[in-house]
Amino acid sequence: MANYKHILLAVDFSDHGIEVASRAGQLAELNHAQLTVVHVVENLPITEATYGPIPFDVDFTQTLLDDAKTRLAKVAAGLNVPEERRLLEMGSPKLEIVRVADENQIDLIVLGSHGRHGLALLLGSTANGVLHHANCDVLAVRLKND
Amino acid sequence: MANYKHILLAVDFSDHGIEVASRAGQLAELNHAQLTVVHVVENLPITEATYGPIPFDVDFTQTLLDDAKTRLAKVAAGLNVPEERRLLEMGSPKLEIVRVADENQIDLIVLGSHGRHGLALLLGSTANGVLHHANCDVLAVRLKND
Repeated sequence: MANYKHILLAVDFSDHGIEVASRAGQLAELNHAQLTVVHVVENLPITEATYGPIPFDVDFTQTLLDDAKTRLAKVAAGLNVPEERRLLEMGSPKLEIVRVADENQIDLIVLGSHGRHGLALLLGSTANGVLHHANCDVLAVRLKND
Repeated sequence: MANYKHILLAVDFSDHGIEVASRAGQLAELNHAQLTVVHVVENLPITEATYGPIPFDVDFTQTLLDDAKTRLAKVAAGLNVPEERRLLEMGSPKLEIVRVADENQIDLIVLGSHGRHGLALLLGSTANGVLHHANCDVLAVRLKND
C-alpha cells in the first residue's frame, strides 16, 4: 500500500494540541508526506447580552483571526510547514476541514479527539463530524486528561 | 514523538477490508510496531420469525465463529501476524475493540469507516463508537464506493 502523500493537520490550540501536531509531524516524516496545517475560527453567534450591548467599534472577528494567525504560525513553524501551507479558515470546523482536505487532495486528516464527555455527548465533536464527512482517512489523536 | 508500539487492526471482512488491513500493515512496518488483529462476531438477536421457527439443532453461533476464524486467519497470515495475536471475540464490536485495546496496551486502533449513509446516519457506526470510547488513537480508513 502506498504511503500517505499529503497530510492535513487540523489544530484547535487546545492544551494538548501539541501532541496532535507532533503526531502529524512524525507521520509526515515516516511517510515522506507533505504537511498542511489548518485552523478554523468558528463563527460565534453573539447572542449573549448579559454584559450589555457590545460596543460597535470592537471588531471581535478581526481580533480572533489575528490571534489565530499568530498561534497557527507558531505551530506550523515548529513543523517546518511553509507559509503557503498554513491555512486559516472561518466557519464550521468539520465542514471547513473536509472542504480543505478535498481541495488539497489530502489523504489523511490528523486531529485531536476528546472522549465522550459532557456536551460532546449531546452535540458531537469535530472529530466525529470530520469522520462522518471526510473523503479520506482520519486519524483521531486521543487527548488525555480531559 | 515516539512511534506507535502496538497497533490493533479491527477487521470486519467487508469488501474493502483488504485496504484497511494493508494500511495497518504499512503503519506497523513504518513504526516498527507490533500488530494484533481482532474480529468481533456480533451477537445477533434472532427475532425474525418470517421463515418459521429455527430448527434447534442448527447452531448458528458456532457456524459464524468457525467462518470468522477462517477469515481472520487468512487476513492475519497475509500480515505475518502470529496465531497468539489473532483475536476472535463476540459481542458489541465497539465495546470489544476498546476492551481488547485497553487490555493489550494498544496505542493505535485501525479500522474501516463508511461514510454517513443510510442506517449509519441513524445508528452510528463502529468507527464512530470506537472513536468515542477508545483510550488511544484511532485511524479510520475511509472505504470507497459504499
